[in-house]
Amino acid sequence: MNRREILKAGSAVLVGGMAAGEMKTVAANAASKTIERWDVFEEVFAGPKEGNPFKDVWLKAAFRKGNREIRVDGFYDGNGAYIIRFMPDELGVWAFETDSNVAALKGKKGKLDCTAPQKGNHGPVSVRDTHHFGYADGTPYFPFGTTCYAWAHQTEELQKQTLESLRTGPFNKIRMCIFPKWYQYNHGTPPRFPFVRNGETNDYSYFNPKFFQHIEQRIGDLRAMNVEADLILFHPYDHWGFQEMPTEVDDRYLMYVIARFAAYRNVWWSLANEFDLMRKKNSADWDRYARIVTETDPYAHLRSIHYSKAPYDYSRVWCTHAGVQDYAFDKAAEWRAEWRKPVIFDECMYEGNINSRWGNLSGEEMTRRFWLCTVAGVYGGHGETYVRESDIENDKAVLWWSHGGLLNGTSPKRIGFLRNLLEEIGAVGGGRIGFEAIEPVYYMAAKRSGNEAILWFFDFHQPSYYDFTLPEGAKFKAEWVDPWEMTIRAVDGLFSGKSRIKLAGKPYRAIVFKRV
Amino acid sequence: MNRREILKAGSAVLVGGMAAGEMKTVAANAASKTIERWDVFEEVFAGPKEGNPFKDVWLKAAFRKGNREIRVDGFYDGNGAYIIRFMPDELGVWAFETDSNVAALKGKKGKLDCTAPQKGNHGPVSVRDTHHFGYADGTPYFPFGTTCYAWAHQTEELQKQTLESLRTGPFNKIRMCIFPKWYQYNHGTPPRFPFVRNGETNDYSYFNPKFFQHIEQRIGDLRAMNVEADLILFHPYDHWGFQEMPTEVDDRYLMYVIARFAAYRNVWWSLANEFDLMRKKNSADWDRYARIVTETDPYAHLRSIHYSKAPYDYSRVWCTHAGVQDYAFDKAAEWRAEWRKPVIFDECMYEGNINSRWGNLSGEEMTRRFWLCTVAGVYGGHGETYVRESDIENDKAVLWWSHGGLLNGTSPKRIGFLRNLLEEIGAVGGGRIGFEAIEPVYYMAAKRSGNEAILWFFDFHQPSYYDFTLPEGAKFKAEWVDPWEMTIRAVDGLFSGKSRIKLAGKPYRAIVFKRV
Repeated sequence: MNRREILKAGSAVLVGGMAAGEMKTVAANAASKTIERWDVFEEVFAGPKEGNPFKDVWLKAAFRKGNREIRVDGFYDGNGAYIIRFMPDELGVWAFETDSNVAALKGKKGKLDCTAPQKGNHGPVSVRDTHHFGYADGTPYFPFGTTCYAWAHQTEELQKQTLESLRTGPFNKIRMCIFPKWYQYNHGTPPRFPFVRNGETNDYSYFNPKFFQHIEQRIGDLRAMNVEADLILFHPYDHWGFQEMPTEVDDRYLMYVIARFAAYRNVWWSLANEFDLMRKKNSADWDRYARIVTETDPYAHLRSIHYSKAPYDYSRVWCTHAGVQDYAFDKAAEWRAEWRKPVIFDECMYEGNINSRWGNLSGEEMTRRFWLCTVAGVYGGHGETYVRESDIENDKAVLWWSHGGLLNGTSPKRIGFLRNLLEEIGAVGGGRIGFEAIEPVYYMAAKRSGNEAILWFFDFHQPSYYDFTLPEGAKFKAEWVDPWEMTIRAVDGLFSGKSRIKLAGKPYRAIVFKRV
Repeated sequence: MNRREILKAGSAVLVGGMAAGEMKTVAANAASKTIERWDVFEEVFAGPKEGNPFKDVWLKAAFRKGNREIRVDGFYDGNGAYIIRFMPDELGVWAFETDSNVAALKGKKGKLDCTAPQKGNHGPVSVRDTHHFGYADGTPYFPFGTTCYAWAHQTEELQKQTLESLRTGPFNKIRMCIFPKWYQYNHGTPPRFPFVRNGETNDYSYFNPKFFQHIEQRIGDLRAMNVEADLILFHPYDHWGFQEMPTEVDDRYLMYVIARFAAYRNVWWSLANEFDLMRKKNSADWDRYARIVTETDPYAHLRSIHYSKAPYDYSRVWCTHAGVQDYAFDKAAEWRAEWRKPVIFDECMYEGNINSRWGNLSGEEMTRRFWLCTVAGVYGGHGETYVRESDIENDKAVLWWSHGGLLNGTSPKRIGFLRNLLEEIGAVGGGRIGFEAIEPVYYMAAKRSGNEAILWFFDFHQPSYYDFTLPEGAKFKAEWVDPWEMTIRAVDGLFSGKSRIKLAGKPYRAIVFKRV
């Protein structure tokens, strides 16, 4: 039974926790529907097809439980279908009631019973302990992100390959554009457009629901793998007009996206990629977008913005975290202190071999950058831009950074190794989660707030011995870590206070102390 | 015939162009003595031994040729010997006449005939083309310096080994302390002290001429190998009081050093190592030292100062160049522009394996730093701090950075390779010598001012192809350089304008374009 058939049948559907293409249906106005915590509750109503429902009709719903009320915007999904979505964050029965400027959509009531989340569903991610992140269920979240800007606009086959790479890879966040992309190695026509398109012209009055249904299917696929979807709302790599839409269309687009996607727990909002390259926008525009996202999203998903040359002022209240394009890792401590937010070096160049300076880091250097971020108490971001020699002149070459596909680099495995290490030692004990750099920053050392674990990364230093200064009155075991070979070797003995340890005299190694 | 014997014989000596231990003698008051340009002319006079000649007697001389007059200070060398030294910079006959507050040293006259320099004698180094250096005879000088702070205070055997390492090594400048050193791995008693020493007390009224004779012998040894002696006048690694002498002694020491050493063409003055760690000195002291050196040195040898944490303002007029302790290579362009002087990263950490953060770079990283400096239009500085595992706890271990001895690292050979490359392509054509960074700094590229040569260093980038933008209307041949393997491979073809070249997709490589 497809959506059209459901609508014909006059029933509403609940689409909760669905994997791609899978759909559970329930009768409309059932007394109470069951949905797990932080999943998407969806109610579909039949309404008018006449005129332009996208502009003429508004639909809202209020979800209530006890003294709490959460209001969500509905949206038109085409073919007379109007949808409200809701992500319950509290167990128990929620009641809802709709409002609309159309009688058929007004005053609809219903209930849902929010049940305990299934294993693997940790809820949305938010800021924790000032500079770090955690899932809503308390599980720490350490972002190890990658970038596949336009993966959702590729062939189905390629998208499936991307999902498989993500499933088996080390990444738990992906930066991806909502709009299609036009750029170096990206000059194809996307399979769908976000607006009705007449020849070379967009009709901004009409969204193309299929476009958005497809994106949300991909968000759902990512959610099923616990990969956060860091959605890029605007970007300048455009060929079709989406970087210079009328103000009113920009705003309507944002409202529509939020109404559709916000109930997915793994959504993050990035106002833009390289916002400062979008010459038709001014700072008032960016302030307005920030306000719309902040005020409209009922769940306060994480919000940031990405720049090219002009660093954004991430101390701005609307930003939940900084997502910088930079590789000045020595500034990380200063930025953390100034912004008092988590800092993610979302784009610190990519592993690859292409012409562009930002796209040809060695795997060693990409790996190193994740370690530098970790010991600075911030987070790195991966991307991959390998082109085969035979494909250099082929504009259709598939590069992970944009198209997804296969991961060819040497860094992902090592990034996964670091992620495992961080998840193991970055969340133990009773202190704050994550690492805080040890000041003054001699070498690169960071510790868990309660000294449960201390991590030293030696970067290009190769001491053959080192006098560590550990807390007195506690004993630590030590592990010698090779981030490239991905080996961990226990060091004999227990250590406390000033401790001289013989090291291998080789660069790019690390030592982890764990309190016993 | 030693100096004492000469003095007994009542004759003065000319010590010109001597290698260590070698000495030519001529009769006193000979009508004209022959000395090659930029060599040390020396005249020794017998004078009073009574009282304290170091404080009671002054001796000066004026050297005249045509309308030029160069005044030099003489000095007391002990045992009734008073010496004036002079480095003639112009061919032909120079006349001199002494002045003194002692009759026996006043009004002494003589002549010298300055002849053409022998092969290998290029004269002193000075600033050339704002950001670079050249010898007085026009030969470009590219500083490739190393550091052996206390090498002149070691055993004779070790000093000979150091000289042999320098003779066969890649370095043409050495940073060395005049005062002995007390520091990590440096806690021995030096064979000589600069002042008469009674037990644990210095008698600052009396210099120890043997100490200074020894230093100048080493300066002469370096000069014979065309290694510039970057003399560190003060430093804080002290155990004997030299870092906190009375003001009057500081000043007298500087005058004495200049009177003795300035005639050596290979002398540079560094007011201090880590001046900001000398807590007994204030900025007025440093200003006074700078003034004394500037006003007293008749030859205007190169002058700078080295800091620990507090960057010096190298825009100060007295500095001829900046000698920074830093590794912020991305600031090099800014500093060059601001200071309008050559910038040498004299201490950008050392290759080694010791505990200290500044002393355990890998050889790869040390090599890389020289390349980064080169393409930024500045210069690097080497040092080496390898300790054998069996010597870690042995305070008498020999580390090149302080003691000299053998070079054990992997970077010197590669630094030599770069020096050869720079000397080959950094001086061709009619433009300014040395490289100027190409702005904006994408990758790391620098060119000779007349586009005679363009150098690209790819650092941790590994493009498999690159679109170079070369000057139109000129043709270039290209060479693919591996700085680690020290290989140079010609790239087929001639290039002009925008030129795509396939590269190896490996990091830390370079390309040199040479105009044909």
